[in-house]
Amino acid sequence: MKIDRLAVLGVGLIGGSLAQAFRRADLCKTIVGYGRNEASLKKAIELGVIDEFSLLARDAVRDADLIVLATPLATNAVLFREIAKTIKADAIVTDVGSAKACVVDAARSGLGEHFRHFVPGHPIAGKEQSGVGAASAGLFEDHIVILTPLAETSIHAVSLVTKLWEACGAEVMTLTVEHHDAVLAATSHLPHMLAYALVDCLAKMQEREEIFQFAAGGFIDFTRIASSNPQMWHDICFSNRESLLTVLEQFDAHIQEIRQAIESRDSEKILQIFSRAKQARDKLIAGRQTT
Amino acid sequence: MKIDRLAVLGVGLIGGSLAQAFRRADLCKTIVGYGRNEASLKKAIELGVIDEFSLLARDAVRDADLIVLATPLATNAVLFREIAKTIKADAIVTDVGSAKACVVDAARSGLGEHFRHFVPGHPIAGKEQSGVGAASAGLFEDHIVILTPLAETSIHAVSLVTKLWEACGAEVMTLTVEHHDAVLAATSHLPHMLAYALVDCLAKMQEREEIFQFAAGGFIDFTRIASSNPQMWHDICFSNRESLLTVLEQFDAHIQEIRQAIESRDSEKILQIFSRAKQARDKLIAGRQTT
Repeated sequence: MKIDRLAVLGVGLIGGSLAQAFRRADLCKTIVGYGRNEASLKKAIELGVIDEFSLLARDAVRDADLIVLATPLATNAVLFREIAKTIKADAIVTDVGSAKACVVDAARSGLGEHFRHFVPGHPIAGKEQSGVGAASAGLFEDHIVILTPLAETSIHAVSLVTKLWEACGAEVMTLTVEHHDAVLAATSHLPHMLAYALVDCLAKMQEREEIFQFAAGGFIDFTRIASSNPQMWHDICFSNRESLLTVLEQFDAHIQEIRQAIESRDSEKILQIFSRAKQARDKLIAGRQTT
Repeated sequence: MKIDRLAVLGVGLIGGSLAQAFRRADLCKTIVGYGRNEASLKKAIELGVIDEFSLLARDAVRDADLIVLATPLATNAVLFREIAKTIKADAIVTDVGSAKACVVDAARSGLGEHFRHFVPGHPIAGKEQSGVGAASAGLFEDHIVILTPLAETSIHAVSLVTKLWEACGAEVMTLTVEHHDAVLAATSHLPHMLAYALVDCLAKMQEREEIFQFAAGGFIDFTRIASSNPQMWHDICFSNRESLLTVLEQFDAHIQEIRQAIESRDSEKILQIFSRAKQARDKLIAGRQTT
């Protein structure tokens, strides 16, 4: 299962952590990085995350057996087209993007005949810091990685990518592209949008200094994800636009229902909603603690 | 400054923690508890949180020098009327309620001539667990306690309550009732409502089991406050109804703006909003770390 040459496109938090996890599990001989920021790539070499780098994606992927795209979602279309020119015929390509339909579309049109060797992937792991300095080999341990292979995706490619992630300590699950995008819009993309919206809304208020001064632990936790990389979440918003707008509409309808219940002093309804929510979240936490 | 007899009405997370903090700081001789659940009060005695208890508030407050209401907000009006009949003429009364206008109204009409000895208070501390079993003497250390005294409130009473909280390790600040309720609606009550709303919204979706299965750390933190006591937050919602509806309207307008920006692919606007939010939150966290 050992990879001779791994190319990591985008050596940031996720790409860097993947390189470190692969290295720790002894899954590859040489790791070549690609990025646009030379200083950051030099830092990645100093940290031992990668062995060499190129500022040209087409050079970085040459002779690579496995290519992982860990670049911002918005750059994928251009990258797939570029690497298709130089990758080996049997090279396996995968990615770590938080939205899958847009990546699959970009890969299908950009990779051409290589598309059947592309395994769309998404590790459900991260933190609000970004950059290779925040990377760590254990980031994916006990975390889920979702793969969304298509009908034409090579079974061999899916199997290899699955084994590699498992060797990094992750649990691999398979979903359809559409299902992935709907589920992640609900559990990840919408909460990020709400956290950003709340902090920005409060920051605009007249009493902003005071408002944040009185913020308790609940607010700090609730808004942690609003410290995430704005460019990355901007890309995710637009990459998963349809699913996000759908779940936002459902959430909005629910908020209006709650608002009306508070306005009309419908005590029973508010207690029901809050109680159901607590029950669902307590169950979710209990489920995690037993696994 | 030592209190001979402290009466804690409601020996739950906050009331119990206050009793323990007062005891640890040697601020009182005897602590009497009041509640409706005898088993819970017996547990509080076993845990050394209180010395004695009564199931009648009017008996618990008799001869007390300081009376702290830590009961659900919805019960305050009845309690103020009841204790007014038996409290000592110079007894000082304070509370820990998360909304202040409603408590002040209840105290004004219920306490009568004792109202000038009532110091409305709100420790900005808590956790999602409830009950005396979750109480701890250190809960208020390095936390803010907001007092909202009225024009007629005795300066002596405000001064004593301030010193007691400070002796528990808290920092005491003073706000007007209106200001308190507006600020807390924004930083605490709205986030709780949103967290409950999101979890309940997702729990209603068809794919609910799967949805929660793929929830990442961001979702877990974002929704931590949805594991809070539903009855308590129901009471807070209605007790601070006007302020909550006002800030919800502001937040809703902001969400609609973001929704339109995503719909119309206004990339620049989304990036601006997310960047401003990250900046504001990072500043808030940096400010906390330096203090």
